[in-house]
Amino acid sequence: MKKALGILGGMGPMATVDLFHKIVAMTDAACDNGHMRIYIDCNAAIPDRTAAILSGGRDPLPYMRESLQKLLSCGAELLIMPCNTAHYFLPRLQAESPVPFLSMPAVTAAACARLFPGKTAAILATRGTLATGIYRDALLSASVPFLEPDEAERDALMRVIYQGVKADAPAETYRADLEGVIRGLQARGAGYFILGCTELPLAFSALKLSCPVVDPTSELARAAILQCGYQVRVQRLC
Amino acid sequence: MKKALGILGGMGPMATVDLFHKIVAMTDAACDNGHMRIYIDCNAAIPDRTAAILSGGRDPLPYMRESLQKLLSCGAELLIMPCNTAHYFLPRLQAESPVPFLSMPAVTAAACARLFPGKTAAILATRGTLATGIYRDALLSASVPFLEPDEAERDALMRVIYQGVKADAPAETYRADLEGVIRGLQARGAGYFILGCTELPLAFSALKLSCPVVDPTSELARAAILQCGYQVRVQRLC
Repeated sequence: MKKALGILGGMGPMATVDLFHKIVAMTDAACDNGHMRIYIDCNAAIPDRTAAILSGGRDPLPYMRESLQKLLSCGAELLIMPCNTAHYFLPRLQAESPVPFLSMPAVTAAACARLFPGKTAAILATRGTLATGIYRDALLSASVPFLEPDEAERDALMRVIYQGVKADAPAETYRADLEGVIRGLQARGAGYFILGCTELPLAFSALKLSCPVVDPTSELARAAILQCGYQVRVQRLC
Repeated sequence: MKKALGILGGMGPMATVDLFHKIVAMTDAACDNGHMRIYIDCNAAIPDRTAAILSGGRDPLPYMRESLQKLLSCGAELLIMPCNTAHYFLPRLQAESPVPFLSMPAVTAAACARLFPGKTAAILATRGTLATGIYRDALLSASVPFLEPDEAERDALMRVIYQGVKADAPAETYRADLEGVIRGLQARGAGYFILGCTELPLAFSALKLSCPVVDPTSELARAAILQCGYQVRVQRLC
């Protein structure tokens, strides 16, 4: 049975474009009519999730609820959202949703267990996402061994993401920081890296880093395609 | 006053991804919250428009109406659709819509008049789009002089689009066809080219063709951003 997909988006808009692109590119469809029905609410008005969690910013939950209701009234039968930090609020959205709402960290943890059995993951993410514990909890539930960056590595990752990728700085300006984080985590036993921030695939690609990675956006696209009753064209894009 | 945008998509899904990407990339926003609200219905079930127009295929209009109603009930205040051929049905959708529904050929014709005053446009499109007359009528209304491909050039364009780009063939296999069409139209007075099929920007980019063009998807993105009350970051992407 085919299901219609709802994407609770806008957090941020370009990450929503990226997820939508991956779903369309990865769906095994012989023609336009072979694709799934997708409803998107790209709701850029949702207040910053990190600010709400770490520093008492405006509560994004009422805005996320409004988008959820719109997607449901369109006819969405499975829901996803392309924002790591927003998953801190997922249990409350799931409790209010009459249809399944997939968790990006949960599908990522399942992919880790499937693709890298017995190896240790390293979670690469912003301080906000690390503070929520969403990847830690998902990996614990899936019995996937993992490491988190230490304080100096967290500082380096924040520079890569905010002063590097988000600021559109040349990739070479953050090569030393990112390679340092990778070497440090590899020295402590990391066998592969979870790109737990939507800016990180861009950084890895720009620097042509070849270490093994799991891209949560690709895994979410893959899981959504399968759970909506369609086939995946390629194993993954990233 | 800011407006929420509705995208009647799925014709096809990748053209919908491309339009969404161009809107987000071209919106002049300092942060996520500076972007507009966008509702998308990527409705891949809409029957093939060319088949309906040229060979008595299933009528897509009831499906397009259903998407229109969903976008309106979400709260869309301006509507667009990223499919050239579908614009054959636009007047009937506009008649039923309580909010403005922008025409891609009309905004393209306005861009032609603004960007290339006094020069002659050449319409590059599939036989289906050319048969609808949507670009011819829009250019006539905007008093923009234009040429259409002759029969041999139409055959060559169909090969470029269907056996080349859509079949994912190497670009060099369709270089002679596309360059022949361009030279023929330039010899008859064309000063620039309207890329009136969503595959053509990909072909021009793959072959690194440098002749002046107008990309209707970029022009539609630009017009939607401005009419929703936002600013455009760059003049255009293509």
